[in-house]
Amino acid sequence: MRVDGRSNDALRKIEIVPNYIIHPEGSVLISIGQTKVICNATIEDKVPPFMRGQKKGWITAEYSMLPRATPERTIREAARGKLTGRTMEIQRLIGRALRSVVDLTKMGERTIWIDCDVIQADGGTRTASITGAFVAMILAFQKAVERKQIAKIPVTAYLAATSVGVHPQHGPILDLCYAEDSTTNVDMNIVMTSRGEYIEIQGTGEEAPFSDDQLAQLIALAKKGIGQLIEAERQVIGDLLTGEKEGSKR
Amino acid sequence: MRVDGRSNDALRKIEIVPNYIIHPEGSVLISIGQTKVICNATIEDKVPPFMRGQKKGWITAEYSMLPRATPERTIREAARGKLTGRTMEIQRLIGRALRSVVDLTKMGERTIWIDCDVIQADGGTRTASITGAFVAMILAFQKAVERKQIAKIPVTAYLAATSVGVHPQHGPILDLCYAEDSTTNVDMNIVMTSRGEYIEIQGTGEEAPFSDDQLAQLIALAKKGIGQLIEAERQVIGDLLTGEKEGSKR
Amino acid sequence: MRVDGRSNDALRKIEIVPNYIIHPEGSVLISIGQTKVICNATIEDKVPPFMRGQKKGWITAEYSMLPRATPERTIREAARGKLTGRTMEIQRLIGRALRSVVDLTKMGERTIWIDCDVIQADGGTRTASITGAFVAMILAFQKAVERKQIAKIPVTAYLAATSVGVHPQHGPILDLCYAEDSTTNVDMNIVMTSRGEYIEIQGTGEEAPFSDDQLAQLIALAKKGIGQLIEAERQVIGDLLTGEKEGSKR
Amino acid sequence: MRVDGRSNDALRKIEIVPNYIIHPEGSVLISIGQTKVICNATIEDKVPPFMRGQKKGWITAEYSMLPRATPERTIREAARGKLTGRTMEIQRLIGRALRSVVDLTKMGERTIWIDCDVIQADGGTRTASITGAFVAMILAFQKAVERKQIAKIPVTAYLAATSVGVHPQHGPILDLCYAEDSTTNVDMNIVMTSRGEYIEIQGTGEEAPFSDDQLAQLIALAKKGIGQLIEAERQVIGDLLTGEKEGSKR
Amino acid sequence: MRVDGRSNDALRKIEIVPNYIIHPEGSVLISIGQTKVICNATIEDKVPPFMRGQKKGWITAEYSMLPRATPERTIREAARGKLTGRTMEIQRLIGRALRSVVDLTKMGERTIWIDCDVIQADGGTRTASITGAFVAMILAFQKAVERKQIAKIPVTAYLAATSVGVHPQHGPILDLCYAEDSTTNVDMNIVMTSRGEYIEIQGTGEEAPFSDDQLAQLIALAKKGIGQLIEAERQVIGDLLTGEKEGSKR
Amino acid sequence: MRVDGRSNDALRKIEIVPNYIIHPEGSVLISIGQTKVICNATIEDKVPPFMRGQKKGWITAEYSMLPRATPERTIREAARGKLTGRTMEIQRLIGRALRSVVDLTKMGERTIWIDCDVIQADGGTRTASITGAFVAMILAFQKAVERKQIAKIPVTAYLAATSVGVHPQHGPILDLCYAEDSTTNVDMNIVMTSRGEYIEIQGTGEEAPFSDDQLAQLIALAKKGIGQLIEAERQVIGDLLTGEKEGSKR
Repeated sequence: MRVDGRSNDALRKIEIVPNYIIHPEGSVLISIGQTKVICNATIEDKVPPFMRGQKKGWITAEYSMLPRATPERTIREAARGKLTGRTMEIQRLIGRALRSVVDLTKMGERTIWIDCDVIQADGGTRTASITGAFVAMILAFQKAVERKQIAKIPVTAYLAATSVGVHPQHGPILDLCYAEDSTTNVDMNIVMTSRGEYIEIQGTGEEAPFSDDQLAQLIALAKKGIGQLIEAERQVIGDLLTGEKEGSKR
Repeated sequence: MRVDGRSNDALRKIEIVPNYIIHPEGSVLISIGQTKVICNATIEDKVPPFMRGQKKGWITAEYSMLPRATPERTIREAARGKLTGRTMEIQRLIGRALRSVVDLTKMGERTIWIDCDVIQADGGTRTASITGAFVAMILAFQKAVERKQIAKIPVTAYLAATSVGVHPQHGPILDLCYAEDSTTNVDMNIVMTSRGEYIEIQGTGEEAPFSDDQLAQLIALAKKGIGQLIEAERQVIGDLLTGEKEGSKR
Repeated sequence: MRVDGRSNDALRKIEIVPNYIIHPEGSVLISIGQTKVICNATIEDKVPPFMRGQKKGWITAEYSMLPRATPERTIREAARGKLTGRTMEIQRLIGRALRSVVDLTKMGERTIWIDCDVIQADGGTRTASITGAFVAMILAFQKAVERKQIAKIPVTAYLAATSVGVHPQHGPILDLCYAEDSTTNVDMNIVMTSRGEYIEIQGTGEEAPFSDDQLAQLIALAKKGIGQLIEAERQVIGDLLTGEKEGSKR
Repeated sequence: MRVDGRSNDALRKIEIVPNYIIHPEGSVLISIGQTKVICNATIEDKVPPFMRGQKKGWITAEYSMLPRATPERTIREAARGKLTGRTMEIQRLIGRALRSVVDLTKMGERTIWIDCDVIQADGGTRTASITGAFVAMILAFQKAVERKQIAKIPVTAYLAATSVGVHPQHGPILDLCYAEDSTTNVDMNIVMTSRGEYIEIQGTGEEAPFSDDQLAQLIALAKKGIGQLIEAERQVIGDLLTGEKEGSKR
Repeated sequence: MRVDGRSNDALRKIEIVPNYIIHPEGSVLISIGQTKVICNATIEDKVPPFMRGQKKGWITAEYSMLPRATPERTIREAARGKLTGRTMEIQRLIGRALRSVVDLTKMGERTIWIDCDVIQADGGTRTASITGAFVAMILAFQKAVERKQIAKIPVTAYLAATSVGVHPQHGPILDLCYAEDSTTNVDMNIVMTSRGEYIEIQGTGEEAPFSDDQLAQLIALAKKGIGQLIEAERQVIGDLLTGEKEGSKR
Repeated sequence: MRVDGRSNDALRKIEIVPNYIIHPEGSVLISIGQTKVICNATIEDKVPPFMRGQKKGWITAEYSMLPRATPERTIREAARGKLTGRTMEIQRLIGRALRSVVDLTKMGERTIWIDCDVIQADGGTRTASITGAFVAMILAFQKAVERKQIAKIPVTAYLAATSVGVHPQHGPILDLCYAEDSTTNVDMNIVMTSRGEYIEIQGTGEEAPFSDDQLAQLIALAKKGIGQLIEAERQVIGDLLTGEKEGSKR
């Protein structure tokens, strides 16, 4: 049995609190077990220089952890004066994932800034960030619709992410907590849409390479978890995605 | 009447949630009205180089705001690659204030790191940080006593902080919210102990100089507010400060 | 008796050399005892981006110390690649203080850059910088009047600053030299106008809190010192401030 | 037909020049079509601080491109003062991949620094870097064996990497050149061992999500390419890996 | 006899490979003995801000060494986050030297970026960079003529550079390799034109001052070497400089 | 006639004020015409890491200009966060020059830090810095002799520096002021000893190459100026250099 008593294919408890912070256009506190991330979405009425004049919008993300989100205090990146490679990887991943389900041509020349701040970490912070950021982004788009900035939410599918891994004792498992993450040989983060398509697969076998069989099992676990995460998103934001009706028929 | 209906000498609602984050030795979520700050205290078993070999401890603070703690998104200091002058001023102030009520010779060669992260800002974030940080520090010292690292909590007084200012319409007021702070001519932050002594007075009249009379009124308001804040601290951490009995007789 | 033989309420020798450096619009070498600061004022015919289009001017300050202004050599901030928190605090303070006595709407869209470079330090460098910077700024405004950029000097009051503190042996004292500053429990910097109003009070009791009585004594000492400093300014720049006639009647 | 006339499952021309630079312990110039990378391996007789005292070695990588490796000149990271997120991702990937096939406990407390400098880029620079770096690392280990620093080469498998993608016209294709890379919807980098196991899968469908079918086709293409790349490695470094006999039987 | 058997007035073997990298407008691999530098020239259709509106072009250079260009690995400047003083000196020198033989008024408002990347170092990298950069720049100008951006190559003379020094055993010597450079007392870099005029003399006698006699001998050696280097340039780029006919008559 | 009425071979007025700042071991204010530099020398009782254990001392220099040392205000390098290439070149030059006349083996494992801060600039700041720094260094060595840290001043010759150039109207001239420096085609800085030997020659003909004849004339002017500068040094520090008696006989 896993360290917290879960079965190999069980997610931890999911909680998504909408409108958590008062100022942002979209704000969510997402908890996946003990991992807690504040995801805020800001609408800015311009795009970065490299996007200007293309009549398209842009979505970009930043990620950070409070110093004591972790068991040991980590030095602030602001104090170090630069971002770690890990942070850069994660914020690039979040931005890419969100952009993949948005029709940027329907946003106007606007940027959505996603801020994911991990206030408590227990494994899976990047996948929780993606899932929470998706909801915060939808809330911001709802605000933009209310403000008549856009006609409808320009999103083509629901999107969620989870982690899977190969544990030395338990084999393939879903949604790793920190204790599992640090003892797991293979570690994989998967982002998928409500249409069952892949947005990102990032698997690494630094400690031990993995086989075709293991890859298949990991993917199956991820699909199950992502389905449940998308269901949790739907509880919060309802059934209002552009084209989602058609999409869900496929 | 003030923007939120308070009288000139009224604090906003105070809420102090202890043990808010699971990992730190001391953790508090403090809310002063809509201003919300996570204050975490970490015990490290060494002191910075300039303190080594003095058989004394050290207390230092870091302060940050989430980008959307504010009505407009502010750029992350980690992204800018350096701290603003405002942040440096505030974190120096928090550290100085806490050290003033701790007997550093009773801590062993340990450092307490205080992390104040503003998740939602509505004025008075630096004073809320000091008040919250004091409680988080006490919780960390309690943990150190439990762990038998120190014999008792080496603190000489309760400590709290508040802001006062001279409003163009209302005159001297206590505990400014953001709407008031941005229209106020004189702005003053005061840190005091439970013995009624001053730790810090920082008053600035950039927009309009202030007179001896106004100074006296501001100080009287601050004293009233700080008394109530210390009472709120006592609700959370109880009556356990070293020498506080004697102190309260004075 | 104090380390240099002064009475508790005595300033050190004040010397203000105008037109010290040939290039700046305003330039002063101010000596307060052994503390020597070159204060240069530069007029720039534009304002920073956040001030554009407001038909107002801006005043900003930078502060630095030569590495051997101090008994021990300190590392250059240019070599470290960033400013210390202390420097940021001081330069923000100088800028704020000067702006408080200038009618920015009478300057046109111009910036005055104040550069305070401490070539020799013996305590009180930030207050000497403010006093010297005020004179350098007036000299620059005189140049702007000569050049017909502005009609008259847009300053509403004289301004000076000094330090006071509570010495363990001598009690409250005025104008601390370095030897006193490093042994003093309470340290306070005060900036006042020729109208007897406060611009800044920054008092800190890190080593020992201070009482209402001590606060009152410190303020009285500061008032005395600031009066003499303003008299010294008047010797250099004469009686030419806008509205000063009315002001001095109060 | 593809832009350079290849079939969908064809690699570009592979060339690996060993001992390209005279100073490093291992040095290779690898060309995959027009992509050219100098891969240098340096043996250092100590490990980074976080590895000290563990009786293990460490392998770390750095990656850079000459400014005109690309059609447009890119700004040097040294001139910008910091690494881009892309560079950090790539160098972390290279290091992780190499460590996965090395028995670090057989290296002594040594570090191998891998430097991959792209002198000419035409797509696939990160995967060419991994393949070239693997050969450079083996050459460095051979030098360490000659110098009697280690008894034999502590490598558990051959390793190579390639890119695959889904092209809007051609469908799944192997080994993308730059012209293809910039028009491809799905982009995937795969690192595998000579045992047919996965070290890394990094697939992203920012432009268009991908299906299970497409994933299977991409993996099949990658396996074919990696087999040929490992054959090319064998031409240069021979059949001398620890345990490779057993491995090659599978 | 010198460490590599040369006479005191002999250059090492010169090799200049034109069109080495495919993307740049001009590209050269220059080898002077074991020193190898890739010199790329990029034409950009604008000038830096300080040159705008002057109807002139600009030429600027950047210089770097691969970490293992040297016997010991050196830390990347991109990883350190800043350029060393040595790098800055060298790139300023290269830019200045090239500009001295170009009629900037005949380039249009264009910048030529010169990138000198040392892939293998054995002394004399800065002078090899200048010589190689001159050829790369000419190739880029030829491309600009082909593209009809400019009417003819706006260069007034050939240009080359070499190093000379005073060796403790051999006395004045030409073209120092690394082993000689590190044992030489006096070190001088000289840049001259095909007209026998000086562009730069940079001589330093940190280890031992030098006399008028030695200066004369060093200059004579440099002249001899530079003549041969210019001859090698002519082999690659031919006899096509503007005004070179007249120049060579002087 | 030159802009300030001097003949082509005349220096500007030299003034060297010893013991200018009270804290440093050696301190000088040097004025060469309107150029004014504070040169401070600090003795530190250790050497930098790369010199440890060699039983030798080290001399290193830092150089800076006050923002309004110049006609236009220049941005502080501390505010920019990095040194310019010009500053790096100059401080490397000053350090190298001073080390060339010191017997580092007679200093013990000590560092002399030279700080040259230009408070007013009118051309020739780097050469004035070298000349002033030489005197400050001697004063610091005298202090070290008084403190019995060293037996005698470990200097082998006097040292001074000046600038020469080729002016379009006046031809070769000595000691360029700023107005001349900015219109001069050839610019050369020369550092020589009291024995008539060269320490540094740095000549650049960016605007126009220079001939053998011009080089000879420039050197003759520099020799004359340096002789007078060394005489001025002697007025301040007397005839006390190790071995100078013998030296001056040569």
